[in-house]
Amino acid sequence: MSNRRVGLWLIGSFGGVASTATLGLAALSRGLTDGTSLVTALPLFADLDLDEPSAFIVGGHEIRRGGFRKTVREFQERANVFDRDLTAACEPDLEKWEANVRPGVALNSGPAILRLADWPEASKAETPRAAVEQIQADLRSFKETNRLDQVVVINVTSTEAPFETGDAHASPDKLTAALEHKGPTLPASGLYAWAALDLGFPYINFTPSLGTSFPAAEELAVQRGVPHGGKDGKTGETLLKTVLAPMFAMRNWRILSWVGHNIFGNRDGIVLDDPANKASKVRTKEQVVSSIVGYKPQTLVSIEYVESLDDWKTAWDHIHFRGFLGVKMMMQFTWQGCDSVLAGPLVLDLARLALLAQRRGERGVMPHLACFFKNPMGVEEHDFFKQFAMLEAYVRQASARG
Amino acid sequence: MSNRRVGLWLIGSFGGVASTATLGLAALSRGLTDGTSLVTALPLFADLDLDEPSAFIVGGHEIRRGGFRKTVREFQERANVFDRDLTAACEPDLEKWEANVRPGVALNSGPAILRLADWPEASKAETPRAAVEQIQADLRSFKETNRLDQVVVINVTSTEAPFETGDAHASPDKLTAALEHKGPTLPASGLYAWAALDLGFPYINFTPSLGTSFPAAEELAVQRGVPHGGKDGKTGETLLKTVLAPMFAMRNWRILSWVGHNIFGNRDGIVLDDPANKASKVRTKEQVVSSIVGYKPQTLVSIEYVESLDDWKTAWDHIHFRGFLGVKMMMQFTWQGCDSVLAGPLVLDLARLALLAQRRGERGVMPHLACFFKNPMGVEEHDFFKQFAMLEAYVRQASARG
Amino acid sequence: MSNRRVGLWLIGSFGGVASTATLGLAALSRGLTDGTSLVTALPLFADLDLDEPSAFIVGGHEIRRGGFRKTVREFQERANVFDRDLTAACEPDLEKWEANVRPGVALNSGPAILRLADWPEASKAETPRAAVEQIQADLRSFKETNRLDQVVVINVTSTEAPFETGDAHASPDKLTAALEHKGPTLPASGLYAWAALDLGFPYINFTPSLGTSFPAAEELAVQRGVPHGGKDGKTGETLLKTVLAPMFAMRNWRILSWVGHNIFGNRDGIVLDDPANKASKVRTKEQVVSSIVGYKPQTLVSIEYVESLDDWKTAWDHIHFRGFLGVKMMMQFTWQGCDSVLAGPLVLDLARLALLAQRRGERGVMPHLACFFKNPMGVEEHDFFKQFAMLEAYVRQASARG
Amino acid sequence: MSNRRVGLWLIGSFGGVASTATLGLAALSRGLTDGTSLVTALPLFADLDLDEPSAFIVGGHEIRRGGFRKTVREFQERANVFDRDLTAACEPDLEKWEANVRPGVALNSGPAILRLADWPEASKAETPRAAVEQIQADLRSFKETNRLDQVVVINVTSTEAPFETGDAHASPDKLTAALEHKGPTLPASGLYAWAALDLGFPYINFTPSLGTSFPAAEELAVQRGVPHGGKDGKTGETLLKTVLAPMFAMRNWRILSWVGHNIFGNRDGIVLDDPANKASKVRTKEQVVSSIVGYKPQTLVSIEYVESLDDWKTAWDHIHFRGFLGVKMMMQFTWQGCDSVLAGPLVLDLARLALLAQRRGERGVMPHLACFFKNPMGVEEHDFFKQFAMLEAYVRQASARG
Repeated sequence: MSNRRVGLWLIGSFGGVASTATLGLAALSRGLTDGTSLVTALPLFADLDLDEPSAFIVGGHEIRRGGFRKTVREFQERANVFDRDLTAACEPDLEKWEANVRPGVALNSGPAILRLADWPEASKAETPRAAVEQIQADLRSFKETNRLDQVVVINVTSTEAPFETGDAHASPDKLTAALEHKGPTLPASGLYAWAALDLGFPYINFTPSLGTSFPAAEELAVQRGVPHGGKDGKTGETLLKTVLAPMFAMRNWRILSWVGHNIFGNRDGIVLDDPANKASKVRTKEQVVSSIVGYKPQTLVSIEYVESLDDWKTAWDHIHFRGFLGVKMMMQFTWQGCDSVLAGPLVLDLARLALLAQRRGERGVMPHLACFFKNPMGVEEHDFFKQFAMLEAYVRQASARG
Repeated sequence: MSNRRVGLWLIGSFGGVASTATLGLAALSRGLTDGTSLVTALPLFADLDLDEPSAFIVGGHEIRRGGFRKTVREFQERANVFDRDLTAACEPDLEKWEANVRPGVALNSGPAILRLADWPEASKAETPRAAVEQIQADLRSFKETNRLDQVVVINVTSTEAPFETGDAHASPDKLTAALEHKGPTLPASGLYAWAALDLGFPYINFTPSLGTSFPAAEELAVQRGVPHGGKDGKTGETLLKTVLAPMFAMRNWRILSWVGHNIFGNRDGIVLDDPANKASKVRTKEQVVSSIVGYKPQTLVSIEYVESLDDWKTAWDHIHFRGFLGVKMMMQFTWQGCDSVLAGPLVLDLARLALLAQRRGERGVMPHLACFFKNPMGVEEHDFFKQFAMLEAYVRQASARG
Repeated sequence: MSNRRVGLWLIGSFGGVASTATLGLAALSRGLTDGTSLVTALPLFADLDLDEPSAFIVGGHEIRRGGFRKTVREFQERANVFDRDLTAACEPDLEKWEANVRPGVALNSGPAILRLADWPEASKAETPRAAVEQIQADLRSFKETNRLDQVVVINVTSTEAPFETGDAHASPDKLTAALEHKGPTLPASGLYAWAALDLGFPYINFTPSLGTSFPAAEELAVQRGVPHGGKDGKTGETLLKTVLAPMFAMRNWRILSWVGHNIFGNRDGIVLDDPANKASKVRTKEQVVSSIVGYKPQTLVSIEYVESLDDWKTAWDHIHFRGFLGVKMMMQFTWQGCDSVLAGPLVLDLARLALLAQRRGERGVMPHLACFFKNPMGVEEHDFFKQFAMLEAYVRQASARG
Repeated sequence: MSNRRVGLWLIGSFGGVASTATLGLAALSRGLTDGTSLVTALPLFADLDLDEPSAFIVGGHEIRRGGFRKTVREFQERANVFDRDLTAACEPDLEKWEANVRPGVALNSGPAILRLADWPEASKAETPRAAVEQIQADLRSFKETNRLDQVVVINVTSTEAPFETGDAHASPDKLTAALEHKGPTLPASGLYAWAALDLGFPYINFTPSLGTSFPAAEELAVQRGVPHGGKDGKTGETLLKTVLAPMFAMRNWRILSWVGHNIFGNRDGIVLDDPANKASKVRTKEQVVSSIVGYKPQTLVSIEYVESLDDWKTAWDHIHFRGFLGVKMMMQFTWQGCDSVLAGPLVLDLARLALLAQRRGERGVMPHLACFFKNPMGVEEHDFFKQFAMLEAYVRQASARG
């Protein structure tokens, strides 16, 4: 085991995903839970020099008041998850790490997200550049104070409205210039991403927001020698689409329509109730089936906020397909998963893989992470199993060199 | 296009699967339907020298009176499938091919299947050897009368009770000797299979019955230079298990229980209502999940005869799994498929691939067909996508040599 | 059996519901089908003097070209329903009755419905009054030509956008005056309804459109001595809500949320894809649960057009409820019904009951028909079983008087 | 509020149902939960002189070691129910009431139940009569020690195998004589029931076991002036059958088949895994649909033990029905309920209603409780709403008399 100390910087710290990942780190370090649901705990990864849970220190940015402990308690009360003895034992870590969370930047995050913001210290920056500098100061301080070898920055905030990039986002020079001026040059997710890459900190975008998904960001990542990845963690219904659609393709069944109806009631759901923010989400969810089967069946995706469900995201999908001799048949599924509990371990997987990639000298987008994302940057493939094969190939090569 | 003429010999001709495959051949030859649901119609197979639908002549063995046309009509009336104009146009072919169907051998097929037998000419053979000779005479006559280049034999009868093999099944010599004596040396499915291999006709077992799944059959296939394969076509619920279980494995979710409940009302259902015959089916359906995930979650498979459903096999599966930090979650699916319409095109795929294999000089079991079977002979892999990759590799190699 | 001859006038004749009802009448008269799915065929109704199927002549208004036979054929091809022999035997009736269908009035029916209109003879009226007169001329001619004792008018058109009534709709006098002027005094559904009541023809509104649901119409019905009823036939998902919600109430379970997601692909679905028209439908579907349980759980109803489903309306409902000691539980259901086949027999039930009511001298709204409607006029009760008890009480009383 | 003190004697005290009812009493008394899921907390019952939760003292018989607190803890750990703060506050009551639980009688309860018995003090009685006397001594002692005005005895043990009654069960005299002899004159459930009635304690059978469902018991109840009721609490899937089947009947849809598949993993499930015990349960679950619709559709009920589900009983039902013009349609539902949490409050309702009935001087079977039972004694009606109407009529009459 190495003596490395690494930092996990979570943008949107006190949300469900970040808090679950943080609780998970504490519980894993203390041996209170096993590696179930951690992809990087599979035997496949055994020979990689991944960071152990105990090597991690957590910090982050947030625009809502709260805390890891408060979020965990709400989960226990509302979603009926997390053993009380386990969370009691992890409280000291959560408390200590809460102190590392800094007021974040809400600049350009749009009205749906701003409605949630209630931390007065947040969002004082007036220009994008000032915001980036504030973020970088926080990141540097976290690394130095905690004497960390590396820090990975992961965006787990609520979904922003779609953002159209333009000429200003074509190169680092143009963007650097544009950031001097007030105005919506970058949404909040882009400001955090830019700040991280510019500092040489690996960055992962677990949301459908902009993050690093524009040319200037990729070019900056290559210049600074830093790996990055995204976007939009593939946790439930979309994962199933990328698992099932290949079957329909390989059996040469014609998908006529694929309807997906998602209901859930956590904070992300409130934000997604805003049509602008929902549009970002639906966009990444809609494309996968067509991309896999090579034609466009009718697809419908709806996402609705149902308060009583809390974090239990329930999806009903109805797949109508034509088989031999014109016979139409049906498959339906329901998925009842606790959204943050599905996402949390993937955040830890991505953190471990991004930190490893940096140590291995990789730079730019990490295509081997495609299987983690609804809309993988730098990869056209949506078939989950082909994506996983890309990860396997990477691991074999990395293990061999190791 | 070649001038080859090939024969498709269906054991259980007038059942739903055989009749659907036969109707499909007629409709495809006449350009009345497209290749939907035919795996071998995928672009992947474009460069293989596969037999066109119009190259096929159909014949077979049967122990029930009836006909392709009668079965097709029943499907229209009871299961509400098959366009009337299409079936009317195909009637001449069905009528002509019905004349090729010979009374079969019910020897050792067990009481549940015998209850269905009503063709007085069937089953006169008194020893296994006599039965094999009768079968071979019919096969030879079919080939000669129709001037066929090749004939593939496919078992699509109802499921027999489990059959335990022993020392007599260890080698061709031992089995040949044993076949002289009265007694249950081989169940009906084994007699047909033995007859086919011995004649040098490729053989496919689309059922969970014995077929060629014993050492002497493999050895005979190699001696006679003939390819064979099976067993138990993977059409619906089990296909989904082999598609979904890999996802659970790759995401490191712990499957706690997987319950599958199947209901359907066709003739196979009547046979499967017999506990002995059901045992064969459940056995092949139960093993796949454990084999893929590498541990034994609780699994339950039930199959029940519900007359009103006719051929519409409906499956409900409930998958209970543990995710991160001990949280239990659920996935459920229902599958509503017309069983014979799912199976029929696979029979055609298997026929085309077996005939090709014979022309390519392959002998013995065909492992590249694993993705078609619940219990693939000669292959341990149950992950559908890894099985399909085996087929892809075969096709690429065969195309290259082509 | 009486010698009465009665007319069934269907507004929206060539739609799925009207064509199914018409085919059903023909098939029932000829003894080709049984009374399954006809409420009035239950033993309960045996002593009522209801009109036999053979007493009916069908006519109607339509704004789309087409015919009963064309619609029936489309159902066979697309939705896989209706036995060919049955429909062939009924063709003469359908053909004869098609000749009774007159071009209708599209005045004020809104853009979504007008997009479907393609019968050039339709909609020449320039004022509401002219439209009413045209409708009445058609109705009178139908009755006289066919020497009918009575004619019942039933609205089975696609759903109009919501229509707000005002002072003009408060009394027959005010409305009669307003109808003289051009302008949207009444939507098409109101014009037909007004024309029917004014002529003394019983009227049923099987849709959520305005129909007779305004004070002046009720007053006119009483003046003219004619019964009427509506609105919005309760065929599937909403029926289930009014069946299940009482159980939750009687077991004192707290419904937290009730989400209903409906998908279907028939012509009504195209119209409902227009947000204005969908609003009418959702309105009647949303209220029932709250009305039954006496508080407002979160409810969501969505309706989406999925072309491949044709007439097979599929609904998924997710009901989340709190039981003892705060434990949250779930019920889900899927309903797969052929929409027109569910509605068609109810149209016949309503026709028979309205004609009987007229003969019994009833006038004004018929509250005993509440169990047939999503939004029963004149009745607050939504509990299906209490509604059915109202019908039972009526039947007992009507049978007794005999 | 009265000063009455009443006893609730639970046979099978430490099982899930009894422990939930007991926890519920404590929580209701302390105002820690509301009346959700208590039928008797509906406004309908407001004028009845029912016993308040705080009037109850709990005791019971048990053959397994354990305790209310232990069972509650297991629920929290395994089924993720019951708020920790609530259960902590109720612990003193549970502890106190545990002391009232006496070792019970396992005589004649069959091997599946005996396998669970581990309390050495249980089951020493050698003849049925000795067992009855032991039970009565315990009941008398409970009543006297706690100075109770009344005690109601409720059977919530696991399901016994079916028991055939004969001539000995025809009258109290014959049975009294038979009880003197060793041998299976009565199963355990009958011994408890006999003991209770003979002492003049009202008795409720919440299980499908024999209880008081034989003529001699009814006669004894009338002689002793004591009310009794049962059998088999209607909590989930069967409740839904009795809610939905009336809809199919009233809409004149023909049910073709009704398949119900139940999976769950609590202790009752272990017992029901024994085919003999399962037969009792399936028998009461199967009859209800036929009884309501008046003909026999194909029905299948399966119950399977799936350990991971613990108390979360999940049912999938598939209802296939024929509508107008022969069209077959489908309804499916899944029910995910916590079994003991569904049953617990009904136990309290039944206790309150039985105690009231005794005070009102009722004797013999209580038909007004039919809506609580799968197989209501003394009532043929299975339609839930008609059963509920019987309860409403009773309450109105009882309220009027005051």
